[in-house]
Amino acid sequence: MSSTAALQDILELVRPELSRMDQELVEDLRPGDPSLGPLLEHVAGYRGKQLRPALVFLTGKMFGEVAEAHYTCAKVVELIHTATLVHDDILDGAVVRRSEATVNELYGNEVPVLLGDYIYALAFHMAVSLDDPTCARMFSAAVRVVCQGEITQCLHRGDTDWNEERYLQVISEKTASLYGAACRVGGHYADASEPQLQALWSFGEQLGIAFQIIDDCLDLTGEESVVGKSLGTDLGLGKLTLPMIHLIGNSGDRRERLLQMITDPQPGRGFEELRQEFDVEASVAYAMGRGREFVEGAVRALAELPEGSARDAIGGLAEYVLRRHY
Amino acid sequence: MSSTAALQDILELVRPELSRMDQELVEDLRPGDPSLGPLLEHVAGYRGKQLRPALVFLTGKMFGEVAEAHYTCAKVVELIHTATLVHDDILDGAVVRRSEATVNELYGNEVPVLLGDYIYALAFHMAVSLDDPTCARMFSAAVRVVCQGEITQCLHRGDTDWNEERYLQVISEKTASLYGAACRVGGHYADASEPQLQALWSFGEQLGIAFQIIDDCLDLTGEESVVGKSLGTDLGLGKLTLPMIHLIGNSGDRRERLLQMITDPQPGRGFEELRQEFDVEASVAYAMGRGREFVEGAVRALAELPEGSARDAIGGLAEYVLRRHY
Repeated sequence: MSSTAALQDILELVRPELSRMDQELVEDLRPGDPSLGPLLEHVAGYRGKQLRPALVFLTGKMFGEVAEAHYTCAKVVELIHTATLVHDDILDGAVVRRSEATVNELYGNEVPVLLGDYIYALAFHMAVSLDDPTCARMFSAAVRVVCQGEITQCLHRGDTDWNEERYLQVISEKTASLYGAACRVGGHYADASEPQLQALWSFGEQLGIAFQIIDDCLDLTGEESVVGKSLGTDLGLGKLTLPMIHLIGNSGDRRERLLQMITDPQPGRGFEELRQEFDVEASVAYAMGRGREFVEGAVRALAELPEGSARDAIGGLAEYVLRRHY
Repeated sequence: MSSTAALQDILELVRPELSRMDQELVEDLRPGDPSLGPLLEHVAGYRGKQLRPALVFLTGKMFGEVAEAHYTCAKVVELIHTATLVHDDILDGAVVRRSEATVNELYGNEVPVLLGDYIYALAFHMAVSLDDPTCARMFSAAVRVVCQGEITQCLHRGDTDWNEERYLQVISEKTASLYGAACRVGGHYADASEPQLQALWSFGEQLGIAFQIIDDCLDLTGEESVVGKSLGTDLGLGKLTLPMIHLIGNSGDRRERLLQMITDPQPGRGFEELRQEFDVEASVAYAMGRGREFVEGAVRALAELPEGSARDAIGGLAEYVLRRHY
C-alpha cells in the first residue's frame, strides 16, 4: 500500500469530522472584501495531509464524543498551519506548493506577508469565540514558540557549528509545539485529566519531532517527483539538518572539504557532487534511526491513554510518519 | 509650541500609566531564546507616539479609574502596532524607522516576517490572559480588518481608477479599525454602556481616518527632516492617496500627462517635476479639509461621553492630529 493510501486508511475514523471541517473552512475563508476572493480561494487549496486537525479529532475521540469545540480547535490549527506555509514560502523563495504556484510567485512578497497575518488573525479570532479560553491560550503560546524556533533557525543559517542538541531544540519549537498543542486541546475539550493531557502533549511533541526529522531526510534522499521539490533545498538555504550535522561530525580529516562544499556550493550540481564524495546515505540512516526513537517515545506515551479505535488510529499515524515518502 | 511638545502636554494625564506600560513591555519582550535578544531589543526601540495605548488609558479614565485590564489592552494594541510596523517595513522596503535601521535592512526580509508573527502571537497570548475575552475578540477582529485593508491597497497599487470612496474604505480598515478598537476596549473595561461604547468606537474610527489622511498629506508636503523619510514615497510605491486622487480627478485635459508621470516616474526627480507642473498643494489642501471634517466628526462623538479632564485630553489629541508635522 502506498503511504498516501495508508494515511487515508488511518484517518477513516475521523473522515466525517475532517469533511465537515473542510466545508466550514471554505465558509470561514470567504473574504470580507471581494478583492481578496482569488487569494483566499488559492490558499484554501493548500490544505494537505490534515494531520494536525486529525490529531485534534482523534485525541478527542479517545475520551468519548467529538464536541463542537473540537471543530473550532481543528480549524484553528489548520489555519495556523496554513499561515505558516504562506510565510515559509516567502522565506524559502518557494515557487510551487502542492503543485500550485505559491502566493509569492504569483503576487511578489508583499501580499503573502499580509495574507499570512490575515489568516493568523482569523485563526485567533476563531479561537477566542469559544467561552473556554484554553484553545486560544494554547495556540497563541504555540505560535510564539513556532516563530522563536524559525527565527533561531534563520539566524543560524550556514552556521557549521550547529549541533544535534540545538537542532532538536529548534524543531521541537518550530514543528512539534503545534502537534503538542493539537493533541492537548483535543483531550482538554473531552475532559481528559491533567496526567492524560501531559501524556497527550508528550505524544504530540515527539510525533512532531519525528515528523520534522523525516521531512529533513526526505529533502536529501526522497524522490523529487514524490516529495514535490528539488533535493538538497535545505542545504542550498544554509539549513543544517540532522543528517548533515551527523555527516559533518563524522567527516574526520575531510571536514574542511565538506564544509567548503556546504558553504560554497556549485550552483546546480553541488549536492550531487557532495553525495558522490560523502556517505550521505549513512547519515540519513542515522537520522531516520533518531526519528524512529521519537516515534517509539510517542507510542510509549500513548500507553497511558484509554484503549480503543481512536488510540489505535493515532498509533497508526505515528507509524505512518516513519513510512511516508512525501 | 512644537507639535511634539503639544502631544507630550496632552498625554500628561496618562504619563504614569504609559511609563508603567513601557517598563512592562521591556519585560514582556524578553526573549525565550537568547538568539532573539538583540532583535527584540531593537524592536523595543520602535515605540513612538504611543497614541493607541494613550487612547486605551484616556477612554478608561473617562469612566473612572484605570484598571489592570487597561494595561493589558494598552500593551496588546502597542504590540500589534509594532508587529504591523515590522511587516510594513518589508512591504515598503524601508531602510530607516525612527532613526534606526529597520529589521529588514539589518537581517534581510526573512527574519522580520517571523519577528512580526512572533510579536502578533505575543500580543494575542497577552490578550487571552484576561478572563474577559473582549480584548482578544476586539483586537483579533481588528487585525483581520487591518490586513484586509492592507491587502486591498497592495492589490490596487498603481490603479489610476482608484477613487475617494475606496480610499476611505481602505484607510478605515488598515488604520482606523485599530483606533476604534483601542477606544472601545478602554470604555469596555471601565463599564461604559453600549451607546457610550458606540460613541467611543465612532470617535476612534474618525480619528484614525483623519490621522491617515494627514499622514498621506505629510508624505507629499512635509519637511523631509521632520517626517523622517523622502517625500513622495507613497507615490513611488504606486499608492494613490487622497491628495493624488483629487489631483487626478481635477487634471482635466492634462489627465493623460499626469497619469504618465505617476505610473512611469523618472527616478529621483519624478515627484519634483510633478509638483512643478501640477498644483499638488491645492489637492493637499483639499485632503487636509477632509481630514478636518473627520476630526470634527470625532469631536462630535465625544459630546455623548462624560465630561472631565480625560475627555478634554482626548479632544486635544484629535486637534493634535491636524496640527502634527510628523
